[in-house]
This record gives sequence, structure tokens and C-alpha cells, in this order.
Amino acid sequence: MAQDFIAPSILSADFARLGEEVDQVLAAGADIVHFDVMDNHYVPNLTIGPLICEALRKHGVTAPIDVHLMVKPVDRIVPDFAAAGASYITFHPEASEHIDRTLQLIHNEGCKAGLVFNPATPLSHLDYVMDKVDMILLMSVNPGFGGQSFIPSALDKLREARARIDASGREIRLEIDGGVKADNIAEIKAAGADTFVSGSGIFGKGRAEDRNRYDTIIGEMRTALASVGR
Amino acid sequence: MAQDFIAPSILSADFARLGEEVDQVLAAGADIVHFDVMDNHYVPNLTIGPLICEALRKHGVTAPIDVHLMVKPVDRIVPDFAAAGASYITFHPEASEHIDRTLQLIHNEGCKAGLVFNPATPLSHLDYVMDKVDMILLMSVNPGFGGQSFIPSALDKLREARARIDASGREIRLEIDGGVKADNIAEIKAAGADTFVSGSGIFGKGRAEDRNRYDTIIGEMRTALASVGR
Amino acid sequence: MAQDFIAPSILSADFARLGEEVDQVLAAGADIVHFDVMDNHYVPNLTIGPLICEALRKHGVTAPIDVHLMVKPVDRIVPDFAAAGASYITFHPEASEHIDRTLQLIHNEGCKAGLVFNPATPLSHLDYVMDKVDMILLMSVNPGFGGQSFIPSALDKLREARARIDASGREIRLEIDGGVKADNIAEIKAAGADTFVSGSGIFGKGRAEDRNRYDTIIGEMRTALASVGR
Amino acid sequence: MAQDFIAPSILSADFARLGEEVDQVLAAGADIVHFDVMDNHYVPNLTIGPLICEALRKHGVTAPIDVHLMVKPVDRIVPDFAAAGASYITFHPEASEHIDRTLQLIHNEGCKAGLVFNPATPLSHLDYVMDKVDMILLMSVNPGFGGQSFIPSALDKLREARARIDASGREIRLEIDGGVKADNIAEIKAAGADTFVSGSGIFGKGRAEDRNRYDTIIGEMRTALASVGR
Amino acid sequence: MAQDFIAPSILSADFARLGEEVDQVLAAGADIVHFDVMDNHYVPNLTIGPLICEALRKHGVTAPIDVHLMVKPVDRIVPDFAAAGASYITFHPEASEHIDRTLQLIHNEGCKAGLVFNPATPLSHLDYVMDKVDMILLMSVNPGFGGQSFIPSALDKLREARARIDASGREIRLEIDGGVKADNIAEIKAAGADTFVSGSGIFGKGRAEDRNRYDTIIGEMRTALASVGR
Amino acid sequence: MAQDFIAPSILSADFARLGEEVDQVLAAGADIVHFDVMDNHYVPNLTIGPLICEALRKHGVTAPIDVHLMVKPVDRIVPDFAAAGASYITFHPEASEHIDRTLQLIHNEGCKAGLVFNPATPLSHLDYVMDKVDMILLMSVNPGFGGQSFIPSALDKLREARARIDASGREIRLEIDGGVKADNIAEIKAAGADTFVSGSGIFGKGRAEDRNRYDTIIGEMRTALASVGR
Repeated sequence: MAQDFIAPSILSADFARLGEEVDQVLAAGADIVHFDVMDNHYVPNLTIGPLICEALRKHGVTAPIDVHLMVKPVDRIVPDFAAAGASYITFHPEASEHIDRTLQLIHNEGCKAGLVFNPATPLSHLDYVMDKVDMILLMSVNPGFGGQSFIPSALDKLREARARIDASGREIRLEIDGGVKADNIAEIKAAGADTFVSGSGIFGKGRAEDRNRYDTIIGEMRTALASVGR
Repeated sequence: MAQDFIAPSILSADFARLGEEVDQVLAAGADIVHFDVMDNHYVPNLTIGPLICEALRKHGVTAPIDVHLMVKPVDRIVPDFAAAGASYITFHPEASEHIDRTLQLIHNEGCKAGLVFNPATPLSHLDYVMDKVDMILLMSVNPGFGGQSFIPSALDKLREARARIDASGREIRLEIDGGVKADNIAEIKAAGADTFVSGSGIFGKGRAEDRNRYDTIIGEMRTALASVGR
Repeated sequence: MAQDFIAPSILSADFARLGEEVDQVLAAGADIVHFDVMDNHYVPNLTIGPLICEALRKHGVTAPIDVHLMVKPVDRIVPDFAAAGASYITFHPEASEHIDRTLQLIHNEGCKAGLVFNPATPLSHLDYVMDKVDMILLMSVNPGFGGQSFIPSALDKLREARARIDASGREIRLEIDGGVKADNIAEIKAAGADTFVSGSGIFGKGRAEDRNRYDTIIGEMRTALASVGR
Repeated sequence: MAQDFIAPSILSADFARLGEEVDQVLAAGADIVHFDVMDNHYVPNLTIGPLICEALRKHGVTAPIDVHLMVKPVDRIVPDFAAAGASYITFHPEASEHIDRTLQLIHNEGCKAGLVFNPATPLSHLDYVMDKVDMILLMSVNPGFGGQSFIPSALDKLREARARIDASGREIRLEIDGGVKADNIAEIKAAGADTFVSGSGIFGKGRAEDRNRYDTIIGEMRTALASVGR
Repeated sequence: MAQDFIAPSILSADFARLGEEVDQVLAAGADIVHFDVMDNHYVPNLTIGPLICEALRKHGVTAPIDVHLMVKPVDRIVPDFAAAGASYITFHPEASEHIDRTLQLIHNEGCKAGLVFNPATPLSHLDYVMDKVDMILLMSVNPGFGGQSFIPSALDKLREARARIDASGREIRLEIDGGVKADNIAEIKAAGADTFVSGSGIFGKGRAEDRNRYDTIIGEMRTALASVGR
Repeated sequence: MAQDFIAPSILSADFARLGEEVDQVLAAGADIVHFDVMDNHYVPNLTIGPLICEALRKHGVTAPIDVHLMVKPVDRIVPDFAAAGASYITFHPEASEHIDRTLQLIHNEGCKAGLVFNPATPLSHLDYVMDKVDMILLMSVNPGFGGQSFIPSALDKLREARARIDASGREIRLEIDGGVKADNIAEIKAAGADTFVSGSGIFGKGRAEDRNRYDTIIGEMRTALASVGR
């Protein structure tokens, strides 16, 4: 299994000084930058688009940027994010009528591609595209709605997804997003995840003037992850 | 006629350090912050949502924030922007099936309301709502598409809109957006505009390390505006 | 000008005993039955469809039934309402991409046809179809949203619509809907209306056990209408 | 397994005297009131909305009201039906992009929640939400289209759904809708259903002046159901 | 005023031998090829796309091809038709939310651009784009629906459009489509049209084995047109 | 297993002389005419509609016409194609919210019915309709996008579909479309297909003046197919 990746979701960062925030979490040990795009159609919220992604690259961020598209339809905006510096682009199978084609499009644009599963979405959408996905993202909350906690049935789903990945023999990241915190991250890893998105779990801790708070929380996560063998 | 307002469009600012950018243009004399929201449906681009507006307020911005919604439909996101600190909320008549109702909704949420007109959109949408608009925004480029310059017929349209405003006897801002620069701003004011959006015309000038570049460009605009009597 | 029509909107009636309610308002002097259809798409509410219209006909209602479609798109449901016994079918110009065609369709189905104007909608949609409309309905509130009162600018709009009707030389009903009550109905008639929709203004008065309450309120409306010469 | 529920669909009742009709079927032994909501978008028909549900509650109906939403999208209208007195709210997985979230929303509004399956819809939509459904409704005709009879393959699907319910260990009603009549209800129960919707099978029998006709037909259904052991 | 153009609509031709049909009408004196594109969304019919346009060019057709888009949205398909050899591309203002932009797009793709007006659509959509249209097409039937005849009010609308064109001082074709035949074409020209679409009026006449039938009918049209001075 | 059918896709034929092209491929041994309908909504392309189908019938084509609908929604256009002479009508499960109903509609219109599966679409849509499909079409490229080659995982999917068909005991054609050529057709047949769509693989070979080119290529396909026993 792959190395664990901690992926802070910048939606919980301070957008008035985003470059600095991202620099700090990366310096504190985060592996990739998670970037949540909502269009007020696929989900009832509108967040950030390619311009912000591009600004991070211009600011000097070299870590992978992991773009989760909560938009419908998908295809038109893919080249915009590729041009803006995205590393991974993942989308929801419900949001594209031509899933295989969208995966190919993302690859053609030079990015890694993935599918995202809402809590109730069956994994059968993976049946014929395991050879084309580089990442599988399982939502453990409903994307775009606030105030939720980790949905327990996501653990079983992680185990099923892990079995599919292992059976494929391919290198596919298994990412989890929603309610991930230092105190449940070990259990989530044990169920098969290797990439852990955390928003308020990282950016919501401590006060802005405490420059070390990201070291503390990411350190706690690393310790918890290290407790789970592989 | 009202005092001239210079309204920098933050879409051209550096999003890695947005708070600082906005502080600087306001310190340089800008009057209001122009905030362009695109949803990848009403226009083929996706930009920024309520979270960024809220971040500016938390950062300490007290100037009016002028939110231009290039989204369809409109109503669901209005309360989100009101809660995030918007001062003005303007929308396109093509994007709401209940224009009078949307104007009322914006007022009920405590904001000033306005209508935005694409270059080809007739002003007749104003016929029965002049008592409910606080701002009229005329687009002098097509919103959401790059690489355009000021459409000359917008000057005639400004004169017509100005005549409607004067006839109403109400205080209604007449805003113009698209291709406004120091060298055409006087002519635009002469046609009736009193609020001037400028993106790359302000943020695109000079280099980031030149802290005075916003003073320079806004100063040039002020001088040009002052040359037009009222 | 045509005889005044009082048109109770059954949306305010008691749906547990709708037949009886309609019988009573008609016995009390109402002229036509106003029937508000909402589809939760054109307006954010869902009300009643053809089955209820048909039930009124089977129950023995012979008065004209005046169906106001707040639905989008329009055409598919027109034959359903014609078959269910509608007399008039009116729709919003924003809701049909082929207004002339929809008017023809309603006529072909054996019904009278009309256009409905939201408070902010310009009357220019009438420019080329005055020979095809039998009714013009002006909304003096925003359809589908609760808790509103009569929008004053509707009086001017009534005068403009009346002028268009008189210029056409055709018999076209001019209907008004929203906030019509006994105490403003005279002023509304004076502005040009001849058909007056009232929902809670009729059904909301008095208590169910008072069998005469509809006589009282409709009598007051008649008296007010009689005070306005023609 | 739960007690059998007979659920008359009021779409086949006489809407001119709906309160009386519902009183009579309940007096004749019906258990719950089935309420079919169509929006002319998810299905090509428009029926009845929250106002009619509310009217039944005001009329004094205390039996559970079982609201089947044939609408798309789903979420906006859920609180309206909860406020109008719905007991169960069921919806189609194809009609919501966030099924888990919609189930939670229904629960948060104080109602029981369920999923409805069109004849061709796979049961895999249940895979990760068995802990959140209180009812599973299988359609044995295509909803919103007239003149159909019971689709035989629904019996196999009932058996599969029953197996899923039994495996879950939870109390989940298994409802069937479409072509259910006294002469096939035993077979349907034997396949696993415990809640039986019938429209014309109940309301279409006999003549309105025969006050006992609902006793007769519901009695026949009870007898048939009793013949199937559990 | 410009030279008269007769524009046979190939929708009435024999698609089994389209190249030959088009060769024959052009040989018989037709000026341009009218090409009706329907997408089963903007109108309830689906006809022909870019491939057929390209086939005509490959077949050797050099006359202007005048593509009337009855599609919504418009922009995505414009480059396809430009690449397929279209000369004119016209679209409906209701079908594009960015009319000025779509006109620019058509020009950028190297084609002439125009707006099409349904029978009930006001001409006010022209107010701010007269400098960007090369053709105005007035529909004298409702596009996409069969069995209609020339709508008389189109004559007044032609006169208004002609006045707008003359006032603009620009060369703009004024095209008419729907129910144009040899016996009304003179009256239509007199009202201001200079480009005359005819489908069944040309292709529906005579029998396929009569190779001269197109000469006859187009000759009759020319004679009728010549009777109207300019 | 059924006799092999070679199905030339006319989208690759010369539309200037379509009747002749179809006559020639049929004379060369093709079994059925494959007809690809795209609406610029379900896929980003617009091709041909019922008029072209009708023209082939009028031209004298008596072979089965196999209409593949890449349109959304589906139902409205089904009767148009039935009237135009379609033999088979297939559609995508993602494009109809009432799959069972659409299959019934196609049968009611007198045609054979089928489902089409995009490369990533699970076969579970077949679970409850095997008794209603006459054809299963597996896409081995993404429909509506150019420049693709045969997706290898389609072979496994063919085997699974074949197993479902054999288990059903019904006569159901198993069709494959996308990248089928003489050099891979044997392998594709071996995986279970019995109906082979080929567009450029047939029409793109040789030059128009070579009247025998269709005999050559179809002959090669027949030879390859004959090499696979059944």
C-alpha cells in the first residue's frame, strides 16, 4: 500500500492570506493540497475556481494539488483546472454522462484522474474503469452541506474499495473526506484509506497567531497513522 | 449625480494574498470592492463564492462589497452572500424568472439590489422596477469571456440608463464594467456612469513589489474623472 | 368594456370539501373559478393539476374555469387541462420558447388563451400576438411566494394594458391577481381591470360555519365595483 | 414481519369531497393514506401538493400520510410536506444527487424516510443506506403513466428487497404500488410486501352512493392477506 | 436594398439524393441553400447537423449555405458548422444568454451572423447589436412545428425590421421563413424582405422525374419578385 | 446464437448520395443499417433525425434500420422514428428516468427495443428488464466523441452480457459499436457479439469510384467471422 498522504482542505483556510496558510500546512508536513470546487448546481454552495488554483502555483506551491469537482457537468472545466496547475482531478459519476470519456479527458490534459463516491453511491461505477482511475475518493459526509460528522458505514465501503484496488494490481490512491480527525484517523486507515482529507480538523485548530498549531495537529495525525501497521 | 466610485474587481488581484491586495487598493483610494461570482452555468467560468467574501470581512475590510452574480438561478445564493457581508447584490434579468421577487429578497436580506445588463440585453427589464433598484450595472464586455475590449455602443446605453435614472428621481448608482481604463474613463463618466469597475486596469499595472502602483493608477483615474463636470 | 368578473382562487378554499366550497362561492355570485397550477419549477411551490379540475366538472361545476399555469415548460400539459374541462388557459411568456405556437395550441384544444405578466415582465411580449390572446393577466404580487401585498406599480401597468386592448379593438379580458380586496378593488377597476382574482380575500373571510360569508364579501366587492363608471 | 398495511391512493378518490372519501376508507379499515405527488418533470403529470396534505390534517385525518414524491429535484419540497403533516416521505434515487443527505433531511424534519424503485431501477441504491430507510417502495407499474397492469418481475424484486430487509435486522416497511387488487394481493404479500397501495382497486369499485363499498373491497383484501402465513 | 435571394430549404428535399437535389435547385436559379438545424430541445424535432453541411461542400456546392440554428444552447456547435462550410449562421435570442458574445463568436469563426425572431418575439433584442448582425430572419410560422401557414402579422414586423435596417445604414439581409410561396412572395417583398426561404413551396412541387420542375417554380417566384419595384 | 449481422453506420457514408451508398453496402452483404442519432445534449454533436430515416424508406431500403438514440430525454422522439420506419430503437439508460416505460413505448410503437451501455455504465440496468429487451448494444468507444479506438475492457463486458442473454433464454441481439474492423471482428465475436457496427471501417475504405470496395471489406469481415465457431 502507498505512503499515507495528509491532505488539508483549503476550504477551511483563511482566504485573506491563502498563500501563507498553504505554505504553513505544507511546512508542517501536509503532503497534498485538497481543493474543493462547488458550482451551486451539483451541490448547494459555490466555492473556488481555477483562478485560485493558479494563484497557488504562482505563489510557489509545488505540492500536488488535488481538485475535487463538485460540479455538473464536468468536462468543460477540466482543461481550465489542468491549465491552472491541478495534479489530480476527481469528479462524481452522477455528474458526467460519459465517465470513461471524462477520465480520458483528464489524462489527456496531463492530470491524474479519479472518481468520487457520495455516501449512498454504489461502487459499481468502478466496474469497467479500474484501469483508468488513479484515485478513488469516498465521501464520509455529504459534500456541500455543513455540520455533519463521519458516516460510520464509510468504513465498510473503504474495505470494499480497498479490495477492488488490491484486486486490480494498480496503484490507486484511496482517499477519504468528511469528519476525519486525529482521533478517528487510525481506524480509517485500518479500513483501507491512504489519503486523508481534513479541513476544520486542521485549519480550525488553535488561533492564527499560533504559528505552530499546524505542526501540532498534523503531528498528532502522523502519530495516529503510524500506529496502524500495513 | 452621485460621487464617483472606483471599484477594483478583485478577480484580477493576487488570490494568494487577497487581504493585503484589497487593503492596498482601498488605501490607494478605491471606494468599493467589486466581487465577480461565476457559476460555470450562466457563464463558462467558475470564480469565487461567499467564503471569500466572508474572509474579506473577517480580515477587516469595511468598504462596501459589490457582489455581481453571474449565476443562474439566483435566489438560493442571495442569503449566503448577505450573511457573508455583501453590501450590493446585482444579478442578470435573464437569470431569474421572478425579477421583482429577487429584488425584494435582496432587500429583505439587508443588501442593496441591482440589475445587470449584458451588452445586448434591452433596458426594458427596468420598466416596472425602477422603484426597487439601487444600482444598474451595464456590461461593456460580455461577462465570463476573456480578452475583450470596451464595446462602444455601451456609451449610448449609458445615456439611456442615465435618462431613466434621472426621470425616476431616485438615487440609483450607474455602474459600468468591462474595458474601463484611465484613458477612457472620462468619456464613460460623461455618458452617465458614476461607478467604474476596473480589474486588470488596476491590478494588472506595475509589479507586486511596487507598493505605490495602486496610488498611481487610481490617481490617474481620479484626475480623468475630475476633468468631467457634472 | 366587458362585464366585471369576480374570480375566486380556489387555492385558498378548503380542499377537504372543494366541491361544496366552489358551489358556495358561485352561488354567492362569483363569475369564474380561478385555478392556480404550480409545478415546483417555474415557481417554488406545487399545487394542483388536471385531476382536480376534472373533479370539479364531474361534481357539476359549469362556470368557466380559468387555469393559470405557473409551470415551465407549458405545452405538454395544455391538452391535459383542456380534457379536464378548462375554459381559459393562461401562461407566462418566460415559460414557453414558442409563445405564438402555445397560444395556437390552446385554441386548437378548444380553450381561450392568455398571457400572464410577472410584476417586472415588460408588456412587449404582446407586440405581435394581440390577435391571439383572449385574456391578459397581470400579477400584482410575485406568483408562488407567500405573504405579499398589492404592488402599486401594477396600476400603471393595468392602464398600459388597457390601452393596448382598446387599440386592438378585440374582446380581451384584463385580469389582475394578487392582493385584491374589497377595499382596493374599485381603484383597480378604475385602472382598467375587468376580472378580479381573489383568494384569501374571499375564502379567508369569516368562519366555515357561516354559510353566508361568501355572499357578504362578494357583495362588498360588487358594491365597490359598481361605484366605478365605465 | 410487520402488520399488513392497506394504503389507499387518494389519487383515485373524488377530489370534490376528499375529506369524506378519506374518512370513509379509513373507517372501512385502511391503515395509511397514500399521497402521490407528481411535478410534470420527473413524470409527465402534475397532481397534488402540500396544500392538499395540510387540508386533510385540518379536516381531522390522524392516520399516517405516506407521501410518494415523483418530483425532481427533491430537497426543496421536503420541509413543505413535513409542515403539511406528512408521516412518511419517499423519493426516487434518480431524483436526488445526494440520497444520503435527502434521507437525513427527511428525518431532521421529523418524518420517516424511504426510497422508491422504478420497475427497472436496481436495488443497489440501497447498499449504503439500509440504516437510514424506514420504507422501501417498489413500483410494479411505471409511475405517472396511465393504463398499466402489475409487472410480474416485481415479485422477484420484492423477494430480493425482503431479503435485504431481513438481513438488516431493522424495521423497514416494504411497500408495493401498481396494479394491486384483491385477487393478486396474497401473492404479493407472499413475495414479501407488507404495505399495499391501491388506487382504483379501492376507490374505483362500486358507486358513490354505496357507502359500504369500501368496507367490501378492503374486507376482501384483508381476507386474501390473512390467507398468507408469515 | 440588396438583390433578392431565393433560399430553398433542404429540409423538404429528398435526403436519399441530396447532392443532386441541391445541384438542381441551384441550377434552376436559387441563390443560397437554407439549412434548418433542430436539436429536439429548442424545438420538438431533430433534423440535420454539421456532417450534412460538410457533405454538401465535399459534393461541390459553392453557393452560400445559410444555417438556421434552432438549438439551445448555441455556442458549442458554432465552430462545428463553421468548419463544415457554413456561410451564414443565425440563432434565436432566447437560445443564448450572451447574444453579443455569440454574434462575435460566429464572426470570429469566419461566418456571417444573424438573429432569428419567432412570431411573438419582440425586435427589441436588436437594440444594441445592429452593428453586429449581417442577417435578420423573421419566422412567419413557428419553427419546428408542422402544418402551419404564413402568419399575417409578419408583414408588419417585416416593415419594422426594414425600418431598423435602413436606419442602421448597414447591409443586413432581411430573410423570411414560413409559408412563402409564389403567390404571396411579391407581397412579402413589398413589406421589406430580400431573402425568401421556401421548402415545400419549391421541393414539394411536381414529381421527381420532372427535371424542370425547379426551373418552373423558381421562375414563377422571380417573376413575382420582379413585379415589385424597390 | 443468432446469425451474425454486419451493420454499417451511415454516419460515415456520403450524405450527398446516401440512398446510393446504402444500396451499395446492402448489395455488398450488409445485414442492417445502423443509424446514429445525436442531439447535441446527451452527446456533444448533432447528426441526423427521423427525416433521413424516412428518406431511406422512401428510397426503397427494406433492410432493418437500427436506430441508436444518443439523445436525452428519449420518449418524445420515439414515435417520430417509429413513423419514419425504424426497426430497432435503442437508448441509453442514463437518458430515460423511466427505462421500463420507454421499452414498452418502443414496443407499443411497433419496433424492437434495446438498451445501450457506455463504456463505464454497469450492466445492472438490465437486472429487471431482460424480458423486455430485443437488443443490447455495448459501446466500445465513447459515443459522440471522435478519434477513439476499441476499448479493450469491452471484451469482458461482452462476455458478461452474453452470459446474461444465455441465462435469459430469450433471443436478444448483442451489438458492439466502436473501433470494429476486419482485423479485430473475430475476437469480438468470440467474446459474444453477434451484431457488428462499423462506420469508417466500411465506408472509409477505398475510393468512391471503386464500386467494389464494399464487397471487399464486408467480405473480409465475413471471412473473419466465419473463422469463429459457435
